[in-house]
Amino acid sequence: MESGSLADGRQILYFDTATGARRGSFADKRDLGDRASAGQLRYDVLRDEWVAVSAGRNARPQLPVACPLCPSDGDELTEIPAPNYEVAVFENRFPSFGGAAGEANEHGPSFGGVQGEALEGTPLAPNVPATGRCEVVCFSSEHDASFVDLSPERVELVMAALAQRTADLSARGDVAQVFCFENRGVEIGVTLHHPHGQIYGYPFVTPQTRRHLDAARRHQEATGRNLFGDILAEEQAGPRVVAANDHWTAFVPYAARWPFEVHLYPNERFADLAALPEEYVKAFAPLYLDVLKRCDAAFPGEQMPYMSGWHQAPVKEDRDLAWLRLEIVSIRRAAGKVKFLASSESVMGGFVNDLGPEAAAQILKDAL
Amino acid sequence: MESGSLADGRQILYFDTATGARRGSFADKRDLGDRASAGQLRYDVLRDEWVAVSAGRNARPQLPVACPLCPSDGDELTEIPAPNYEVAVFENRFPSFGGAAGEANEHGPSFGGVQGEALEGTPLAPNVPATGRCEVVCFSSEHDASFVDLSPERVELVMAALAQRTADLSARGDVAQVFCFENRGVEIGVTLHHPHGQIYGYPFVTPQTRRHLDAARRHQEATGRNLFGDILAEEQAGPRVVAANDHWTAFVPYAARWPFEVHLYPNERFADLAALPEEYVKAFAPLYLDVLKRCDAAFPGEQMPYMSGWHQAPVKEDRDLAWLRLEIVSIRRAAGKVKFLASSESVMGGFVNDLGPEAAAQILKDAL
Repeated sequence: MESGSLADGRQILYFDTATGARRGSFADKRDLGDRASAGQLRYDVLRDEWVAVSAGRNARPQLPVACPLCPSDGDELTEIPAPNYEVAVFENRFPSFGGAAGEANEHGPSFGGVQGEALEGTPLAPNVPATGRCEVVCFSSEHDASFVDLSPERVELVMAALAQRTADLSARGDVAQVFCFENRGVEIGVTLHHPHGQIYGYPFVTPQTRRHLDAARRHQEATGRNLFGDILAEEQAGPRVVAANDHWTAFVPYAARWPFEVHLYPNERFADLAALPEEYVKAFAPLYLDVLKRCDAAFPGEQMPYMSGWHQAPVKEDRDLAWLRLEIVSIRRAAGKVKFLASSESVMGGFVNDLGPEAAAQILKDAL
Repeated sequence: MESGSLADGRQILYFDTATGARRGSFADKRDLGDRASAGQLRYDVLRDEWVAVSAGRNARPQLPVACPLCPSDGDELTEIPAPNYEVAVFENRFPSFGGAAGEANEHGPSFGGVQGEALEGTPLAPNVPATGRCEVVCFSSEHDASFVDLSPERVELVMAALAQRTADLSARGDVAQVFCFENRGVEIGVTLHHPHGQIYGYPFVTPQTRRHLDAARRHQEATGRNLFGDILAEEQAGPRVVAANDHWTAFVPYAARWPFEVHLYPNERFADLAALPEEYVKAFAPLYLDVLKRCDAAFPGEQMPYMSGWHQAPVKEDRDLAWLRLEIVSIRRAAGKVKFLASSESVMGGFVNDLGPEAAAQILKDAL
């Protein structure tokens, strides 16, 4: 890994299969002005959760004609100063978490799981600066590729980058949870088509993770067993396994909320990507590529829009309960059709799955 | 109110400003075959919530060319047998909750808040039949109208229908919460453009309602006061009030999750629409119409897509804590642009609001 910096002081990291690529030394010749400063985290007392309010992001400039994730090429100056790269990670120019203000002090006060920030506002409307970190992960310098087109070796390099970023962000005082994810498809609002993912270093433990770990804690107390392990064992014996190998199992969960929802569990418990052994990384690449190929093949002639994210243990709590796993969800419900979240899901949190988990699993099993 | 029945046995109700319209006597001459039977509720042990799995709905037929929500006209037979109506309510032909199986027995067993159904599946993957009820509410016989075009008198009639349905569904053994809502706009997937809303009689208390009421219970225990009332008082004195009158206050909440999110609180606490006094109904109509007009005027030349739903007290619990209120949310974030929920929101429950609550409130205040 080599490190460099962008014109406004943001960090960029290059991950390569071979050493000596010397990409970090290329200077960013753009005039970017000052970095955006951190937005605000507001605590919603009714929903008991934090909302990031970063009013600056809505006004972010329209995308330039040139792709900012391609390598810089002569006068075409992009977010990547080097003329080529394998995998590159850099700080998001318009982050939802973090920004120019820098890292918070973890020895300061604490509220609602956010460390080191002085609380402002009122008891019913509290806020703190939105610390944390947002990064962009470029999977390939090839603009027209998609994750599913990567070689297994490149997937391993991406995984190495995610593991390094997870370890590095976990060591920051202001990061409570590291979330590595990819959004793909215009149907879910992706405007940059260059293959890339993102990393959020949240300054709080997210609502879903809190819920999962609360359930796991209750199960551990009641049975002495790990809930994720028990779910995995039951799914492995059931009808919704889409693909599997000696180290990983990919299945549509019993109570899937989305028309297509696939969970990839390692067959052993690890807290996060930084703890994932090399044989699991090697075994992950072909299985994940197989699942993504099935998703794209499910409806011929269409790419599956998807959101794919790693559930990792929080940085400072419940690391003995959490079970690293990947969740892929899609709003595609049939050829040419998407499921929209409407009032029941958006206002009440009541999900309706019209396709059905077994039907979705069968479509994916039959797709290749 | 007059009652009739559709060809497959579903109920239809007509609400009119004058008595004697005799609409209930028109017969439905279609051959609809058998009613869909109830789907399944699956309990997600990780997320601690119910998901409705109704595989039959994904296969529901494409919409006919004629609008099924217009009154029947000669040989054009629709879901409304009468040749005209003011407000009509009928059971959804393809319901997510309920169906041919009929009402569950509330004296049976109970699991996870669902009454009267025998649990099937395993401890990690339990399910019960998806009891409850789904209804469609037609606001007007005019196909091209929108809610915002209704007269205040028609809004009052709609409110009377919702109050009657709330009371009626609350008396069923299998309904734990009544949710009245409207989805509007192709951007959120609405395919039937005839002005209509829906009513879900959920057989469980929804995740958001549980969360709100848990917060309200903690606040009541800590302060002796009602959380919703305290939030309302603070918002009334703050910068995010969009519109108000003697009985209602419409504001963008402090920690709004959506670019446009407006909450309409009655200035006094009522458990549900069935308990709302007439003066509050009368005062609601002009205020809600004003807010909807502001939403549409915010971005000239565009209709605001929205989801608008009533938070009502659960039928059998926490009726002394809950505070009836309407929540309007929109994915519109700027002219011609929508916010998509991507991985952070969909997988982790971590919301990012890029517009900002004060900016949204200002846009709505300035819109008219």
